[in-house]
Amino acid sequence: MTEAIPAILEEIRAEMAARTDRGTPADYIPELAAIDPGQFGLSVVLADGSQHSAGDTAIPFSIQSISKVFALAIALGHHGDRLWARVGREPSGLAFNSILQLEHERGIPRNPFINAGAIVVTDAALAGHAPREYLGELLTFIRAAAGDEDVHINADVARSETETGHRNFALAHFMRAHGNLTNAPELALGAYFHQCAIEMTVDQLARAGRFLMGARPRLISADRVRRINALMLTCGHYDGSGDFAFRVGLPGKSGVGGGILVIAPGRASIAVWSPGLNEQGNSKLGTEAVEMLARRLGWSIFG
Amino acid sequence: MTEAIPAILEEIRAEMAARTDRGTPADYIPELAAIDPGQFGLSVVLADGSQHSAGDTAIPFSIQSISKVFALAIALGHHGDRLWARVGREPSGLAFNSILQLEHERGIPRNPFINAGAIVVTDAALAGHAPREYLGELLTFIRAAAGDEDVHINADVARSETETGHRNFALAHFMRAHGNLTNAPELALGAYFHQCAIEMTVDQLARAGRFLMGARPRLISADRVRRINALMLTCGHYDGSGDFAFRVGLPGKSGVGGGILVIAPGRASIAVWSPGLNEQGNSKLGTEAVEMLARRLGWSIFG
Amino acid sequence: MTEAIPAILEEIRAEMAARTDRGTPADYIPELAAIDPGQFGLSVVLADGSQHSAGDTAIPFSIQSISKVFALAIALGHHGDRLWARVGREPSGLAFNSILQLEHERGIPRNPFINAGAIVVTDAALAGHAPREYLGELLTFIRAAAGDEDVHINADVARSETETGHRNFALAHFMRAHGNLTNAPELALGAYFHQCAIEMTVDQLARAGRFLMGARPRLISADRVRRINALMLTCGHYDGSGDFAFRVGLPGKSGVGGGILVIAPGRASIAVWSPGLNEQGNSKLGTEAVEMLARRLGWSIFG
Amino acid sequence: MTEAIPAILEEIRAEMAARTDRGTPADYIPELAAIDPGQFGLSVVLADGSQHSAGDTAIPFSIQSISKVFALAIALGHHGDRLWARVGREPSGLAFNSILQLEHERGIPRNPFINAGAIVVTDAALAGHAPREYLGELLTFIRAAAGDEDVHINADVARSETETGHRNFALAHFMRAHGNLTNAPELALGAYFHQCAIEMTVDQLARAGRFLMGARPRLISADRVRRINALMLTCGHYDGSGDFAFRVGLPGKSGVGGGILVIAPGRASIAVWSPGLNEQGNSKLGTEAVEMLARRLGWSIFG
Repeated sequence: MTEAIPAILEEIRAEMAARTDRGTPADYIPELAAIDPGQFGLSVVLADGSQHSAGDTAIPFSIQSISKVFALAIALGHHGDRLWARVGREPSGLAFNSILQLEHERGIPRNPFINAGAIVVTDAALAGHAPREYLGELLTFIRAAAGDEDVHINADVARSETETGHRNFALAHFMRAHGNLTNAPELALGAYFHQCAIEMTVDQLARAGRFLMGARPRLISADRVRRINALMLTCGHYDGSGDFAFRVGLPGKSGVGGGILVIAPGRASIAVWSPGLNEQGNSKLGTEAVEMLARRLGWSIFG
Repeated sequence: MTEAIPAILEEIRAEMAARTDRGTPADYIPELAAIDPGQFGLSVVLADGSQHSAGDTAIPFSIQSISKVFALAIALGHHGDRLWARVGREPSGLAFNSILQLEHERGIPRNPFINAGAIVVTDAALAGHAPREYLGELLTFIRAAAGDEDVHINADVARSETETGHRNFALAHFMRAHGNLTNAPELALGAYFHQCAIEMTVDQLARAGRFLMGARPRLISADRVRRINALMLTCGHYDGSGDFAFRVGLPGKSGVGGGILVIAPGRASIAVWSPGLNEQGNSKLGTEAVEMLARRLGWSIFG
Repeated sequence: MTEAIPAILEEIRAEMAARTDRGTPADYIPELAAIDPGQFGLSVVLADGSQHSAGDTAIPFSIQSISKVFALAIALGHHGDRLWARVGREPSGLAFNSILQLEHERGIPRNPFINAGAIVVTDAALAGHAPREYLGELLTFIRAAAGDEDVHINADVARSETETGHRNFALAHFMRAHGNLTNAPELALGAYFHQCAIEMTVDQLARAGRFLMGARPRLISADRVRRINALMLTCGHYDGSGDFAFRVGLPGKSGVGGGILVIAPGRASIAVWSPGLNEQGNSKLGTEAVEMLARRLGWSIFG
Repeated sequence: MTEAIPAILEEIRAEMAARTDRGTPADYIPELAAIDPGQFGLSVVLADGSQHSAGDTAIPFSIQSISKVFALAIALGHHGDRLWARVGREPSGLAFNSILQLEHERGIPRNPFINAGAIVVTDAALAGHAPREYLGELLTFIRAAAGDEDVHINADVARSETETGHRNFALAHFMRAHGNLTNAPELALGAYFHQCAIEMTVDQLARAGRFLMGARPRLISADRVRRINALMLTCGHYDGSGDFAFRVGLPGKSGVGGGILVIAPGRASIAVWSPGLNEQGNSKLGTEAVEMLARRLGWSIFG
């Protein structure tokens, strides 16, 4: 089946290129609003180490919330299962619940992939260090995972995030009020906004995802890999997580920059990028592309 | 590895027998409250058709919400994807959301496995027939799946459910008020309460679950199997679904009678039963037993 | 100032007759949907016992939720302050909270004037008697208050309410599930739907309201009068209660039939009727008319 | 009746002095936590201009949320009814709704007396000026109302509020994210925290409240007086507003420092202070004292 993958990728690329309804790129910061919605890239790393890709595979894009997966790996490295006292492992239901649930559940976010949970994770990942040190550790982890030193933070994006991030400031202050933020809100958010501003190509991102498909040498334990994959499946697409599991059948984490990292455990690490978003804020063509890919290759984890 | 399964099952059974903290059986109806919490059964059907089990494998118990899986298969058979206009595919978040979300989302339940969603599914599964006919169709499906004619409805349990089911009546009337119930509430609920009162042994239930592990001949299409498994993973344990996915790593559906049906796609159909429930209303020892089993056999779908 | 009242009423009537934007009558039952929205009546009973009115003062209309005031007086007569263990005294905030709050607050409605609270009040007012007996007691009370035997229940309206009342059935079953309903839902609701179907003219309603303005002989104690007035002010217009207090400055209770009973303590009992409703479900012209009346006469309780 | 007031005040003071269950002073900042809960003061200014008081009438206390009444008067002076596009006039229901409702209602707080609403009011009251200028205007207004220049801001309290005010920062950022905050959160909150830190004695506060009882010369229009009183009645005690209206029957605004300003329109301006709070965060003995006073003097606005 592997032989067919390049052809399948090319077919998907061609089909996506023909689409006119491409969704709408995020527009809350100028750097994302300015992106050409016609771009599309898809990359697959297989268990044998080979990589196949199609489309705009060499253009760095803002990974945004996909960074939450790497931050979680680092925070778990520092704190282990104690982290789960500060953040839950359940899907959050309604989108509007983000802050409702925080209030109802006394400052404990439902899971590490909604914004509130990711801010707590980053706060924990700081582990007493300055944001600069944490960001260095995070980049080192991602570069090692990707096997590529050329991964950087876009400072303009980070600054724009900070300037427009009032909702995230609200979440951080709210959790601080409930005693669930160790650092000052502006400090934890400084790290968080920079982490979201990391830029990668789909080729880099697919390689960086290998540590979640079970590739060796292991960056984190097999047990932790399974758990992060489980969290991506149940919580990786906000209130569209159930639908992604239903349609694609693979764990994934999306970012508002239009990227999605998808794991076929034991088989492949997949990265897709198309800037236009659907109603849930996930890449519209990206979701469709991985749905087609998973279906063509029979990669669903559900049978 | 298959050779070791009987020994593993026996080990798990012995470990569970030694547990003193067994959770609390449901007590809202006398038939469930009277059950001996010391009971425990575990049964596994493998892809090769062989079945292995340990403990109380021949005692019928009330499958309760596990019946929602079979009802969903039947409703999808009648309506196909049109069913999804009436019920969502997303986890419901907070337990208390059951009716909050109904109000917020105008009578469309979040998924087919919370009570509101299951009532809609049963209402759809009736498909214009009388409850008696639907229940006949449902039993026929389950008996065929289990390869065993000896599966029945406990009329006493059904009657007790009806007498105490004010919350379900509230849900049904609420959805009727929003135009999302085709039948009169008492009629749809009559079918629903009887469906919940089906009794099976773990051996029967494990065999009945084979249609979701991909066994042949197929009772439903492979695509539908994948989708039901995805829904069980994201929504099968109410607001404990994320935790079950995190710990066990397999799709499952629990019932308040203490049973859980768990699917290892392509590998096994597993049924476990222990009447004591944990805080989320799922079998306490049942959850722990399948967590041990999945870990020992490396059956997680997440790597 | 009293001398001017007939002229003021006539001015208001004329102004309201000229309005083209009259709101929309309730349409959930045929009996209300069929009402001519051009009708308008306004009636005032002063502390000296004199009555002045203008417009359609002799046409009976469905008092609907205004009946909750009389039912509350009767339930307090039976149970006194013990009633407040079953229903709160706080405004309910958002309209959608009706059932959200019931769930959050374990079946205790926020106040006696939202539907859930009124159902509990009627359930309490039954006080062990059959609905027929309670309804007899209620009509006796209203007829005595109005000094008019010609007050009746419209059986067609009551039947239509029953047939379409799924939301109220949902509330009743939900409270029953929480142990806050003494009678079977269909029995309490039978009484409730009939109570809502009482018909009165504005002249009758204004006279019936005298017991809340402090008129003698007292039907209920002065202390209870003050408390019911306080509840009407804070909770009498659902999630438009604050706005009514802000604009009119008097306690009032509206009904979906387009009537409003308004009390100027020590000064007047006022009834207004116009079938078209505003966005909050209160009479559009009725609200404007009493706002004009209160302003012209300086009757605000707030200075 | 006026002759009896000094005796009644003394009786109430004596009764309150004997109370052992005095509630608990606010403890979120050291300045409030350190206050002697044994203190109690009560002061009444009558329509004839006479003032009567009992207890600790000369000790300045932190007026906290009572300042919201004065800020509202100033913001209405700057913006008139345009202010109501930014803040509602309805009670907020559940305490936990403060941020839930903000999310649900897109950053428009329910009323000017919950924290979110008061922050918007202060933001509006700034009207383009620096916080220092606004605070000068506010103090000028209060001093004029009280006829006393000796009213000041406690800088220690303001600083402590700022340091612990993460929840208010969360609210401010959240409203800024929804476009309902004109100034930067730290600037609006700087003004807000200083306004809350104003200190007054009960004698000063009762005199300052005269502008809401209809005293002349008028500081604000009669119409605005009525509307502010209406808002105090429906929203002045958070989720205990309905209960205060039910028990006391007068508009009032409480502060977490243990003070309450109560208005008997046309009759009296009343200030009470006792630092211990009840479950809703309002002065426990203060509420009981004004309930006794209103009952003894028959001052309820409800009859």
